[in-house]
Amino acid sequence: MSTELPIGIFDSGVGGLTVMKEVIKQLPAENVIYLGDTARVPYGVRSSETVLRYSLENGQFLMSKGIKLLVVACNTSSAVSLQALRDNFPVPVVGVVEPGARAAVQVTKSKKIAVIGTETTIQSGSYETAIKAIDKSVEVAGFACPLFVPLIEEGWLDGDVVTLTAKKYLESVKNNGMDALVLGCTHYPMIKHIIGGIVSAPLIDSAVETAKEIRRVLEQSETLCGRRGQGSREFYVTDAPHKFAGVGERFLEQAITNISRVSLEQFIP
Amino acid sequence: MSTELPIGIFDSGVGGLTVMKEVIKQLPAENVIYLGDTARVPYGVRSSETVLRYSLENGQFLMSKGIKLLVVACNTSSAVSLQALRDNFPVPVVGVVEPGARAAVQVTKSKKIAVIGTETTIQSGSYETAIKAIDKSVEVAGFACPLFVPLIEEGWLDGDVVTLTAKKYLESVKNNGMDALVLGCTHYPMIKHIIGGIVSAPLIDSAVETAKEIRRVLEQSETLCGRRGQGSREFYVTDAPHKFAGVGERFLEQAITNISRVSLEQFIP
Repeated sequence: MSTELPIGIFDSGVGGLTVMKEVIKQLPAENVIYLGDTARVPYGVRSSETVLRYSLENGQFLMSKGIKLLVVACNTSSAVSLQALRDNFPVPVVGVVEPGARAAVQVTKSKKIAVIGTETTIQSGSYETAIKAIDKSVEVAGFACPLFVPLIEEGWLDGDVVTLTAKKYLESVKNNGMDALVLGCTHYPMIKHIIGGIVSAPLIDSAVETAKEIRRVLEQSETLCGRRGQGSREFYVTDAPHKFAGVGERFLEQAITNISRVSLEQFIP
Repeated sequence: MSTELPIGIFDSGVGGLTVMKEVIKQLPAENVIYLGDTARVPYGVRSSETVLRYSLENGQFLMSKGIKLLVVACNTSSAVSLQALRDNFPVPVVGVVEPGARAAVQVTKSKKIAVIGTETTIQSGSYETAIKAIDKSVEVAGFACPLFVPLIEEGWLDGDVVTLTAKKYLESVKNNGMDALVLGCTHYPMIKHIIGGIVSAPLIDSAVETAKEIRRVLEQSETLCGRRGQGSREFYVTDAPHKFAGVGERFLEQAITNISRVSLEQFIP
């Protein structure tokens, strides 16, 4: 497989751009294609069955672009569709749950880990499963924080409203004796400063851990891009490209120009 | 047309239940079928083109149930798809924008009306168009309040977070000399008490006005249900029926039992 082939990343919307930002930072030479399923965002409130179907369509679209590795940069989707994606597609598939779980187990001494995420991610128990697969003796407590995503997308990253909302959600997290908090949603790194001001435990940023995992997988399969310089960046969305670019540039911390709208209906597997 | 045929109501999710509640209150004998497109909620962040397509699919599904009148209980959808629904279906179609606009024009003396709603509803300018069609001399100012819907769906109907969010959004509304405020989103009646505590102008509740309009249309077409007693209530959603019932019962103020999940793909016009 050519090392020049792009990495494909999908998310339900803009959140996965925090993962793309880390990939660009850690692996600048790689060509990257990003798909945001903005016509059906947010996944965090949908049933597992529906999220699975959407994820397979997203994967199929990126496969049609000739990618060498598929990144599921959405916790909800990683939680419910990773195995199905691995079964269906002939390239390595990296999710955001496993890397975050591994980093949390390395950090904890009290063997108590807290996870925050969307309702679907928390209800799926995916972090608990992934953490216990590494170390059975670790206790995992999950807490859903459904308002963080809309607050972050509204751009309210500082001030009373986001701080009070975070305090309300994190009150019970603070008092459970845990010494690692997993940010189990790709949006949450945007309000790390708020969360870190309330909770004293180290925060595990899945985006950072996922980018490290991508490097490991590419090294193992000897498909790491050897070339110097900056790789290409392409963006696809299923709806409202201008809105995506506007909000997304805050996430990516660089301009989003090469963007197209696509329909996924032809990719229904 | 038989007067016993049901009224069909659709919305992107639970919001339209505030309209259904008013229909049940004002017209208890009518049989009502409600469709919530919870697999693709929220419409307020999507492009007009996408909302139009989803609305036609929703309408087609309800037509297949043999309804006598179609209610578009979603401001975003009313704003962009009312004409297309009227062109495509042989029954009367009632939206939530026109009744709200009419009531606001009757109330205002300063001839300055403010409208709050989702981003798509406000950007569409639909209330301005509907109000100016009644009285050209009225000034209309629109204000998007994207966080109200997630806050209401989270059930945070009281307390610091919703109050501060409302103050932040309504600050500019208060100072523009208007004397009527249209709640241009079917979710907003749930926080009428918060909004009314910040803005002194009368609030126009589109749900109440839409139910009055439904009565007028049924009277005109002589299809008002003549029978006594309570009509039947049926609910359909495109995803996560349990979650819909849980949140929806707060909106409807009664139990939601007769609920099924449906796929709309066969109804793509």
